[in-house]
Amino acid sequence: MNNDLFFSPDPIVRKNARDLYESIKDLPLLSPHGHTEARWFAENTPFENPTDLIITPDHYIFRMLFSRGISLDSLRIPRKDGSRMEGDPRDVWRLFAKYFYLFAGTPTGLWIREELRTVFETDIPLNEKNADLLYDHIDACLKDERFRPRSLYERFNLELLSTTNGAAYDLSWHENIARSGWKGCIVPCFRPDDVTDIGRPDWLKNLGKLGELTGENTETFSGFLNALRKRREDFINLGCNSTDHGVKSPWTHRLSEKDAATIYTQALRGKADDEDQKVFAAHMLMMMAEMSTEDGLVMQIHPGVYRNHDQSVYDLYGGDRGADIPVRCEYTRNLKELLNAYGSHPNFKLVVYTLDETTYTRELAPLAGYYPAMLLGPAWWFNDSFQGMKRFKQSVVETAGFYNITGFVDDTRALPSIPVRHDFSRRIDADYLAHLMVQGILTQQEAEALMPELAYGLTKKVFNREGKLR
Amino acid sequence: MNNDLFFSPDPIVRKNARDLYESIKDLPLLSPHGHTEARWFAENTPFENPTDLIITPDHYIFRMLFSRGISLDSLRIPRKDGSRMEGDPRDVWRLFAKYFYLFAGTPTGLWIREELRTVFETDIPLNEKNADLLYDHIDACLKDERFRPRSLYERFNLELLSTTNGAAYDLSWHENIARSGWKGCIVPCFRPDDVTDIGRPDWLKNLGKLGELTGENTETFSGFLNALRKRREDFINLGCNSTDHGVKSPWTHRLSEKDAATIYTQALRGKADDEDQKVFAAHMLMMMAEMSTEDGLVMQIHPGVYRNHDQSVYDLYGGDRGADIPVRCEYTRNLKELLNAYGSHPNFKLVVYTLDETTYTRELAPLAGYYPAMLLGPAWWFNDSFQGMKRFKQSVVETAGFYNITGFVDDTRALPSIPVRHDFSRRIDADYLAHLMVQGILTQQEAEALMPELAYGLTKKVFNREGKLR
Amino acid sequence: MNNDLFFSPDPIVRKNARDLYESIKDLPLLSPHGHTEARWFAENTPFENPTDLIITPDHYIFRMLFSRGISLDSLRIPRKDGSRMEGDPRDVWRLFAKYFYLFAGTPTGLWIREELRTVFETDIPLNEKNADLLYDHIDACLKDERFRPRSLYERFNLELLSTTNGAAYDLSWHENIARSGWKGCIVPCFRPDDVTDIGRPDWLKNLGKLGELTGENTETFSGFLNALRKRREDFINLGCNSTDHGVKSPWTHRLSEKDAATIYTQALRGKADDEDQKVFAAHMLMMMAEMSTEDGLVMQIHPGVYRNHDQSVYDLYGGDRGADIPVRCEYTRNLKELLNAYGSHPNFKLVVYTLDETTYTRELAPLAGYYPAMLLGPAWWFNDSFQGMKRFKQSVVETAGFYNITGFVDDTRALPSIPVRHDFSRRIDADYLAHLMVQGILTQQEAEALMPELAYGLTKKVFNREGKLR
Repeated sequence: MNNDLFFSPDPIVRKNARDLYESIKDLPLLSPHGHTEARWFAENTPFENPTDLIITPDHYIFRMLFSRGISLDSLRIPRKDGSRMEGDPRDVWRLFAKYFYLFAGTPTGLWIREELRTVFETDIPLNEKNADLLYDHIDACLKDERFRPRSLYERFNLELLSTTNGAAYDLSWHENIARSGWKGCIVPCFRPDDVTDIGRPDWLKNLGKLGELTGENTETFSGFLNALRKRREDFINLGCNSTDHGVKSPWTHRLSEKDAATIYTQALRGKADDEDQKVFAAHMLMMMAEMSTEDGLVMQIHPGVYRNHDQSVYDLYGGDRGADIPVRCEYTRNLKELLNAYGSHPNFKLVVYTLDETTYTRELAPLAGYYPAMLLGPAWWFNDSFQGMKRFKQSVVETAGFYNITGFVDDTRALPSIPVRHDFSRRIDADYLAHLMVQGILTQQEAEALMPELAYGLTKKVFNREGKLR
Repeated sequence: MNNDLFFSPDPIVRKNARDLYESIKDLPLLSPHGHTEARWFAENTPFENPTDLIITPDHYIFRMLFSRGISLDSLRIPRKDGSRMEGDPRDVWRLFAKYFYLFAGTPTGLWIREELRTVFETDIPLNEKNADLLYDHIDACLKDERFRPRSLYERFNLELLSTTNGAAYDLSWHENIARSGWKGCIVPCFRPDDVTDIGRPDWLKNLGKLGELTGENTETFSGFLNALRKRREDFINLGCNSTDHGVKSPWTHRLSEKDAATIYTQALRGKADDEDQKVFAAHMLMMMAEMSTEDGLVMQIHPGVYRNHDQSVYDLYGGDRGADIPVRCEYTRNLKELLNAYGSHPNFKLVVYTLDETTYTRELAPLAGYYPAMLLGPAWWFNDSFQGMKRFKQSVVETAGFYNITGFVDDTRALPSIPVRHDFSRRIDADYLAHLMVQGILTQQEAEALMPELAYGLTKKVFNREGKLR
Repeated sequence: MNNDLFFSPDPIVRKNARDLYESIKDLPLLSPHGHTEARWFAENTPFENPTDLIITPDHYIFRMLFSRGISLDSLRIPRKDGSRMEGDPRDVWRLFAKYFYLFAGTPTGLWIREELRTVFETDIPLNEKNADLLYDHIDACLKDERFRPRSLYERFNLELLSTTNGAAYDLSWHENIARSGWKGCIVPCFRPDDVTDIGRPDWLKNLGKLGELTGENTETFSGFLNALRKRREDFINLGCNSTDHGVKSPWTHRLSEKDAATIYTQALRGKADDEDQKVFAAHMLMMMAEMSTEDGLVMQIHPGVYRNHDQSVYDLYGGDRGADIPVRCEYTRNLKELLNAYGSHPNFKLVVYTLDETTYTRELAPLAGYYPAMLLGPAWWFNDSFQGMKRFKQSVVETAGFYNITGFVDDTRALPSIPVRHDFSRRIDADYLAHLMVQGILTQQEAEALMPELAYGLTKKVFNREGKLR
């Protein structure tokens, strides 16, 4: 990796950034939230080919190609019905290589560039001319034992890798890994949106599975709550540290048990409307927080995304196709009930993320700088970038301090990009601390103490892996 | 011009910025959107005097003087009834010179300073003491052939200059230029707000003119649509590349033809209310997009301004008096219908501008980084500034990439400031790219390829002047 | 103080920043808005102990400790009923010292560090080990004549210190100081929220006091207005320069006299609802502006805070406990009536503050860059920080210019931090101007002229202490 990537031009800042970075660059990686698949590590079979490893599953990549007029079919993105354009994955790779210049200056472009360098160990630049050369090189790598999922986990120096799974998700891949004796720590994160969002088309189907998995009667609201409690326990037994909630809005509101049960029953009958969906989601956030105070799972909220904005693409190709667009988000009023109820609870931690950067200084940092339970997740998704991470730190640290934010969380579905993503975060943090040092805001001692916390320590404490935050 | 204006203090970044800037500083200027007047180039008579050239038409200038208590009358701003304080334009210039220190650190101050240097070729600083000296100097220039409108166009190395005109605007000045044999390319931009905004006091009058100009019966909605189609053709025949829409909100919504016709008829009878105005505007954006897919005009939207905020100034002096204030703007939900209908259409381009910078990372960059038709216009109006342009690039490029934004668009009504405005944009872009290079984010090759695109190439492609975007 | 604190790493910028800073660092301090107490200067008795001087009154400090799980009781924060945990203030100090690392990178951390250095003249770093040493050192200082309130005022080179007081506040401490012959200038700022917010639980009680203090019949709306006018005069007689309004929203709206009186009467009967409260507040802002045009008090608005977000802490400990969280704020539409009525009045000045930074470029700078009466207060509260001040200047100056903003306003309740706060602002401004100079945006002459204006001159003119803005 470029020894000075991201570091400031100023030679004194750069020198300090480099020293800080060197002091932590070899610390293990913690990946407490992301979208890789347990199956990969259970089966440990080689990845198919460069295209299906790098392009097809990653909407960060194909959305940009689509935005300049390249069709999803020509990229062989699978359709909802499972079908897929015929053709050679190599042709997709060639298209990608030809248009790779579109990614100049984007995090995706940098991830790919550095992933090729450090994971696939090649300096050949990705462009139209080199398309086949690189395809063949990566393809050969994938046939090598060193590039099987478990080997990658080990080479990447991962200490923890969390997948994200619905309440109705069958955990057998995780169980399989646990039984296998392999030392890797692949844990699930409990994301019950599949059963708490009564507006989902697959809600009833998911409820059914949840009932089967737990033996609880999900025809009643109390049965449903019991099933959730049991399911959380199942996840915990497989190493789960946290829950996650991908809600439209972070509104939290406790209903009476009777009112909640009434909405639930309405929903079972297919008679719940949008308002019911909203208020039920608000109530379920309260319930999930309450259960977290009992079982200690760290609660994460990822709100404020308009999913599947492009209806015709959704109808044909389904979700996660790059058409998820953020919307304005409000936290001060929306989180009030939850924070008033549990924000000072000694056994509760709430990690909040946002795509609405206007809330950094105005709402999130003041809230995290007050409530003991609340912590801020790092710059998320589109903002998991050089400028995005700088804006995050520059906006929140002065009000919330360094100790009310978590360390880096990669949130990726692209396994081979994990070390690069962590490396970027560590570099950007090192440069940020070096700046503060050179400007007299932090002493050298403070900067040196903060560096490993940001790179590793805070994440470990926040996600209950070791140590205590308070 | 100061050889290093805007360049970073760091010597390595500065060196690279200078090299990048030198490589493109002499490229021709494209001005595909602005508010100069075709009449100037048709008549090609000398500008009257320094005050009427530089101060009176430019609300960027007189709003700042007004803000520190200088009355519009003392600046001889014309009143709505056409009257104007008596007095010598030189006195207005003296006031301007005396208070020019108010513009320290503002783009307007820098434009004036550099315009004096490069267009009027004088280094005398503008202040109270030098007021007369500079007035006389500029006045003498204006009497020189070199300062006539066509000469300025040529000296400025303009390749295209677009005016902005209503649907009911008589294009005879443009026709006159076209017939004159002069090589300058002065084209109109089609801005039909005068007939699509049924809330305007002059709507009926404009409709009448539109009917006359096209021979269509604007008493019916279908006649109105036909008139618009014809009018677009008239504009296209004079070189028009684009439409522009100065809507209050970017809300887009298709009505049934019957509902649209009903509102139109209500409006003709003077019975349309605010809600009708809103929904009709939303429908007309859909219609304009549809027509763009047919005739290829690039559609521009400039939303989110509260016009004429100061009622008493509006009553006396009319619009464009500096009292237009931005308001919050929403794009994700508002543009959904339009983008779902036309966002992937191969013959459609939508350029979106904003004064609400909060939408850069949250809404606009994600949308532009997905929909093939959508592109982002540069930092607009108040944000057409050093910091404003930096914030724009730092916010949108990481998500949308460089190839989903247009190059610079000056949007000026101050003809002599055009080269300076372009020069500023080129300098700021050069410095931005140099930074990315020195920090390892762009390779030198990438930065060198992007520089002419930002300065010239992207604008040319986006506005259909040459080449293709996809 | 660290000679280069906050200055840019670049040696040329740093050199210029240092020169600019040196030229103004010894100018007197103006503190036209804050929350110190007149009693301190009237009585001039020594401060009790380090804890009660530095920790207990300062929610900036104890909110951060609370956020990492330290209870308000263990910090001996007084409860609503006046009671307080028993214990030694030294124990609180020890807790503070132990957890002082939480403040790394925050303005509060820097204020404390530099306050220890410059006011208490010690370089011993604050940490667990040094807790007692520092406690004893400060405690010894406080017993010294040099650390009594009046001595501090003089040592700090204060020229003006404004407290903030309700309309029903008894001004006898201020009168006492005025009569004492002491040269210090301790003036009140008129903050009538206690009687203009009909939703306050203590409203009737405050009205009663207001009646007593003025001899007016506050049972009628016209009597209430007369009382306000008289009270403003009382404040003015004690040197008051300004009013302040801590409204939820900056909405301004004039009611008919009859409607206003009706709501007032309803409120007296305990029958006003939330909507009444809102509209009455909007009307009272109009009335306060009108009175300002008559008596010349500078009107300040501090809107957009959700007070006492943590209900259980509020119930037990009362307000100002760190749980005030900003919310989104709108100015363009909300201030329209006020600015249309008084925004160009020659005897009116309106200083607007915000915690919603999204309004800087979008609303506040455009408004201040147009209306003669309107000025922008500096970065407020959470944003009174290194990054916050940079964002403020970078966002507003290009549109509003330097002369539509006020100089620094410290807004503190921590007396010994005043010189440090001003010093930080002066340093950050010096660095900002140096940057603009080195990048060619300001000439050296412009930067040198602006420096003392930002440090001293603008504040003096805005708050009617000397000179005129227009």
